[in-house]
Amino acid sequence: MTTVLIGVDWGSSNLRAFRFNPQGEVLETRHAAHGVTRFPAGEATAAMLAGLHDWLDACPGVPMLLCGMAGSKLGWREAPYLPAPADLATLSRGLVRFEAEQRQVAIIPGVSSFEDCAGFRDVMRGEETQALGLSAPVPLLIAPGTHSKWIRLEGARISGLHTAMTGELYAILRQHSLIAGVTSDGPWDAAAFHDGLNNARSHPDWLTQLFGVRARGVQAEMPPSSLAAWLSGLLIGYELVQGLARYPDLQQVAIVASAPLSDHYASALASRGIESQLIDGDQAVMRGLWRVAKEAQLV
Amino acid sequence: MTTVLIGVDWGSSNLRAFRFNPQGEVLETRHAAHGVTRFPAGEATAAMLAGLHDWLDACPGVPMLLCGMAGSKLGWREAPYLPAPADLATLSRGLVRFEAEQRQVAIIPGVSSFEDCAGFRDVMRGEETQALGLSAPVPLLIAPGTHSKWIRLEGARISGLHTAMTGELYAILRQHSLIAGVTSDGPWDAAAFHDGLNNARSHPDWLTQLFGVRARGVQAEMPPSSLAAWLSGLLIGYELVQGLARYPDLQQVAIVASAPLSDHYASALASRGIESQLIDGDQAVMRGLWRVAKEAQLV
Repeated sequence: MTTVLIGVDWGSSNLRAFRFNPQGEVLETRHAAHGVTRFPAGEATAAMLAGLHDWLDACPGVPMLLCGMAGSKLGWREAPYLPAPADLATLSRGLVRFEAEQRQVAIIPGVSSFEDCAGFRDVMRGEETQALGLSAPVPLLIAPGTHSKWIRLEGARISGLHTAMTGELYAILRQHSLIAGVTSDGPWDAAAFHDGLNNARSHPDWLTQLFGVRARGVQAEMPPSSLAAWLSGLLIGYELVQGLARYPDLQQVAIVASAPLSDHYASALASRGIESQLIDGDQAVMRGLWRVAKEAQLV
Repeated sequence: MTTVLIGVDWGSSNLRAFRFNPQGEVLETRHAAHGVTRFPAGEATAAMLAGLHDWLDACPGVPMLLCGMAGSKLGWREAPYLPAPADLATLSRGLVRFEAEQRQVAIIPGVSSFEDCAGFRDVMRGEETQALGLSAPVPLLIAPGTHSKWIRLEGARISGLHTAMTGELYAILRQHSLIAGVTSDGPWDAAAFHDGLNNARSHPDWLTQLFGVRARGVQAEMPPSSLAAWLSGLLIGYELVQGLARYPDLQQVAIVASAPLSDHYASALASRGIESQLIDGDQAVMRGLWRVAKEAQLV
């Protein structure tokens, strides 16, 4: 079982590593909570390497290819964002390459996009590699999460992106705001979620709607776990209202996320008449890493 | 110096108490951080009374009139919200009256409003008393803060209200989100504040604009304290966009808040061509308490 590449998607919170054989098949996968933000400044790279030391020992001289926050200031070595449009060739040419651990190391740069409709230079790290790893072309890849990414594709080329702060806002409202006291985890209430979605479509006054979550809770209009689903629907609903304004003719998207989040987005998009194709994140990033490695002649 | 009324604005975080003479003049004022949320459940009332024990001892039999969170579940005794429209007569008739501490006690109820444009029953406690204490009629009273209240007035009658979660959202974004790392307190940057205001008017994609605060910070487009002012402008800007949609012909408002918040709102409203009258919160609540006491024949 010859390993020819160690591929790593090293994100903010988590690490996913893959050992590839010469055919590009994955021999072994490792998941760990060793994201760049989990360690004190300056210690992340050593900790990441320590977590992979058995692979590194077993595969002397085998190149490493990394994507995600590996290329951020907090990661191994900074890889400046490449401006969209960007494709496999662009990203491979833009690799940050160096020698370390007695092997070639390469880091895939993130992608930035200045879209006039947002007014600032939006950025992503890691999702570009998933986009390069799609098995079939789609016009739009949505990677929901803490910072939800909407990635515009033209064939195999990344032509733009925008980010919505949906997941982070949901988390801090649930944990740190007065909404925390009226919401709780519990069985998923799909009806409440869809009611929240509809509310976002009909009520643009979002600062008031956020207060409404608390008011509904204090007035016991909905049980706490249903109100959590309603808030999720409200925020995802606003993400869709704002995102779909940029894609008025959209009929199909790909979603890369784990369940249940991917299901919630698919259900939300279905309510807007848009069909979703669910993408396995591991598979996508795996294929993306391999394609870049081939293009850059690392393997 | 005869005291005929002890008036108390007992809020979530703070307490303001006033001793009135027979002419309705305030003989003494006390401010304390003894809000209802500062004490364990069930202990707030005893602590509030302990903080006023010298006044109570010196004024046996003198009635007490309270407003604000005094009438909430966490306060002294629950006073159900009265639905708008509500005026001095309505609120005085709706007083929750009881005997305690060898004197008459009365709590002013909060006001609720179900406005079709928001879709839920919005509420306030305390601001209704400030609204009753205005010295001259205004069509709209804005009480910005954690939960910013927009109170619609017809003469001396409260005809509706809506709330925006602006202040709380600003605080939790500054403290608990990834925005925290790119913002800091510092000298007020009025230009950045106005840029944030303008951004809210031209960019309805607020979930993306919130991410943009972080992106701007990471890309060092603005110093951290300017970016904090920009975020403040962005959020207050959205509050204005949403609030002014309900008041298309507004020319003048009253603002009740302490500096510098009142100045920021006045400046934001001026940029929309709306004139502001700054109201002293102590004066307004003092007059409101006295007017209710007279109307209800407590004095």
